[in-house]
Amino acid sequence: MRAVTIRDQQLVIEEHPDPVPGKGEVLVRVHAAGLNGADMHQRRGLYPAPPGWPQDIPGMELAGEVAALGDAAERFRVGDRVMAIVGGGAQAELAVVHERLLMPVPETLDWPAAGGLPEVFTTAHDALFTQAGLRSGEHLLVHGGAGGVGTAAIQLARATGARATATVRREELRDGVHELGAHAIAPEGCAEHGPFDVILELVGAPNLPEDMQALATGGRISVIGVSAGAKAEVNLLALMGKRARVQGSTLRARPLEDKALIARRVEHEVLPLFESGALRVPIAATFPLDEAAAAYERFEAGGKLGKIVLLVQ
Amino acid sequence: MRAVTIRDQQLVIEEHPDPVPGKGEVLVRVHAAGLNGADMHQRRGLYPAPPGWPQDIPGMELAGEVAALGDAAERFRVGDRVMAIVGGGAQAELAVVHERLLMPVPETLDWPAAGGLPEVFTTAHDALFTQAGLRSGEHLLVHGGAGGVGTAAIQLARATGARATATVRREELRDGVHELGAHAIAPEGCAEHGPFDVILELVGAPNLPEDMQALATGGRISVIGVSAGAKAEVNLLALMGKRARVQGSTLRARPLEDKALIARRVEHEVLPLFESGALRVPIAATFPLDEAAAAYERFEAGGKLGKIVLLVQ
Repeated sequence: MRAVTIRDQQLVIEEHPDPVPGKGEVLVRVHAAGLNGADMHQRRGLYPAPPGWPQDIPGMELAGEVAALGDAAERFRVGDRVMAIVGGGAQAELAVVHERLLMPVPETLDWPAAGGLPEVFTTAHDALFTQAGLRSGEHLLVHGGAGGVGTAAIQLARATGARATATVRREELRDGVHELGAHAIAPEGCAEHGPFDVILELVGAPNLPEDMQALATGGRISVIGVSAGAKAEVNLLALMGKRARVQGSTLRARPLEDKALIARRVEHEVLPLFESGALRVPIAATFPLDEAAAAYERFEAGGKLGKIVLLVQ
Repeated sequence: MRAVTIRDQQLVIEEHPDPVPGKGEVLVRVHAAGLNGADMHQRRGLYPAPPGWPQDIPGMELAGEVAALGDAAERFRVGDRVMAIVGGGAQAELAVVHERLLMPVPETLDWPAAGGLPEVFTTAHDALFTQAGLRSGEHLLVHGGAGGVGTAAIQLARATGARATATVRREELRDGVHELGAHAIAPEGCAEHGPFDVILELVGAPNLPEDMQALATGGRISVIGVSAGAKAEVNLLALMGKRARVQGSTLRARPLEDKALIARRVEHEVLPLFESGALRVPIAATFPLDEAAAAYERFEAGGKLGKIVLLVQ
């Protein structure tokens, strides 16, 4: 099979042996694979794939057809449309995934949407609901509303009865974010638009002091990205006075049972909202597999609304 | 009535008009009133009582007999033994308390124990269970295991199936803390005794970096005191990697409905553990009301195991 391959921090397309599904695993013929911020770090050697996953083939999410079943795999049949978060190896013609990590693709979704769904909707759903406990009627602030996770978080908040405000640095993207259901604002002075019950923090340390100001009593700051820095100053007295919490989360390092539970939760709580039309996957651009390097370049340039997705076949 | 009174940051005993219970309120003849760290701040003018409570009479917890009932008060009868957290005014011969804030005193408790129970057991229970979600089998670290909240937290953890380790600065107090059910250690190098699922932080900012190191995956740092400083540095990347959270809480500033709910929770989940003998209130010393100034001095001197309680009559 052909796959995007990391060689000396460069992306090339190389031939690899076809992977073989083991017990409980499924061989997936990949149709689409979304790009994520972590792919950029991994290419630079800063974020290796967890053990047991391809180390030189990047890609953390995929959608495709079931091509073959390993022993005792019984959730799906050959030809079924499936998608998943994986530890690595998604940007390839074939990938092996444990059946408990796979989700069915709703009929309403085409391949680019399915390939760009798992990582950002799972991340946003886990951070907002499982971690931060966002409830209907509450007010959410999303830092970075135009990105993949941001566009997912805004829609999830709206679809479950919460209000959403989103900071968007580029003025030209604010209309698009507004159409997703958020009040789109500049990052500066965002505390004036609060107080917020939940703040989804994708930027990191420099935002924390203003986040604390902007937080409502009982509020939660959910940190899932630290692109601008990790060492934050937190005023513990303010945290006590607001009975607030600052929490962090990542998906990639979790054990199989955790990832499988999260996949079940997304199946039950998120996929029906795609079937009903309440959610969609905004796609900024698609690239064929052969143009992976250009896709990564586009991702790093920023200024996009939604996902960049590789189309594999 | 006579009451401890703050005059120019000094404590004196003064005559005050007897308070009169309003609708839903109860007049309590106070027998015992525990001292708390916040009393020390309040005496210095740093922590005023919330609106609607006596401003010049300190005291945040009391136990006594029902002396009279206001209109529509129906939970208790004259003569019943009751105890409560109050916004202020506990260190007096009489106090008026809303009946929804009062709890019955278990028969097994004498007045000093009842007067020293509400604040620390409510604070510890709220922080450990309602805020941090401590579960059986988990490992708790208490910073400051010999103080009022520390001794309560250790016993609550043990009584509900969790393990407890406690830092105790004074070596001579470690045996007493061990008898309460904790592994008692020096504060330095406490991370070596982890990882901990929950850390109860009563000291503040200087402890946070080591707390983060000592925390287990999925761990929670519950900050309820910042005596050594409020501005903490938190490594957000470590927070994400451990899927951890840092949270803060206080009881005093909450609205009536919140305080009443918390009192119900302590009635249902904590008081039965006093009736069964699983919990007790360690009393370091008692002082008569007239010697309030000496009691405060004793409190501030530190080096005590458990509560300092004023005996009022």
